[in-house]
Amino acid sequence: MENCIFCKIVKGEIPSEKIHEDDTTFAFLDINPVNLGHTLVVPKKHFENIYDVDDNVVAHIMKVAKKVSVALKKIGADGINITMNNDKDAGQVVFHLHMHVIPRLKGDNLHLWPGRKPKEGELRETAQKIISML
Amino acid sequence: MENCIFCKIVKGEIPSEKIHEDDTTFAFLDINPVNLGHTLVVPKKHFENIYDVDDNVVAHIMKVAKKVSVALKKIGADGINITMNNDKDAGQVVFHLHMHVIPRLKGDNLHLWPGRKPKEGELRETAQKIISML
Repeated sequence: MENCIFCKIVKGEIPSEKIHEDDTTFAFLDINPVNLGHTLVVPKKHFENIYDVDDNVVAHIMKVAKKVSVALKKIGADGINITMNNDKDAGQVVFHLHMHVIPRLKGDNLHLWPGRKPKEGELRETAQKIISML
Repeated sequence: MENCIFCKIVKGEIPSEKIHEDDTTFAFLDINPVNLGHTLVVPKKHFENIYDVDDNVVAHIMKVAKKVSVALKKIGADGINITMNNDKDAGQVVFHLHMHVIPRLKGDNLHLWPGRKPKEGELRETAQKIISML
């Protein structure tokens, strides 16, 4: 897609620190890493996010994320967060689907979002709403 | 696996609000949701996390996460974060692999982790280390 920064990275029109490439995916280092080793796995074909991506493409992205995770552990990560942000309200900035593979270090002081105790009946009601849309 | 809470949920020994089930996966609502609709997709077979899971299983989990994401959007989510935490130092609490599908709402005040500008040469050096382990 024209003017998509990740399409340009995939094509080599913008330089990147490439980690992996195959027929379907391209993986490279995030230029503003949360921790060093923070990798983005993207499809070569342009998809905006999880809603429009082909099933087989996103499945393959996950396999590559696994491969990268294992490598990051070998070079010293204490843990790995795998994340994908879809839509502006979920923090998506580049609208070419990308999976973050983030190495974690003991004491790096990053915190997951807190959960909360739902009200009586809220979970059941929500489950029924979701199931009706599957 | 004995004494694994998610294995018990999959077997129905512990109740849950089930969203989806197939031969490979089981999806249910997190009992302490970040936002209502927060779903966990787990493999029926016990795997600890990303490092030991079968490629095809984790690929299938991603397809189910996509399906759930689309449903959550239909019932009002403004965005979706998909996350997987591997190891205690990445916030993993239950050691049965699980993918979080978290609906986001405009103004819910949850923030992604900040990135930072790497030092000269750090990205290249890190890329070379990762590549050597792939």
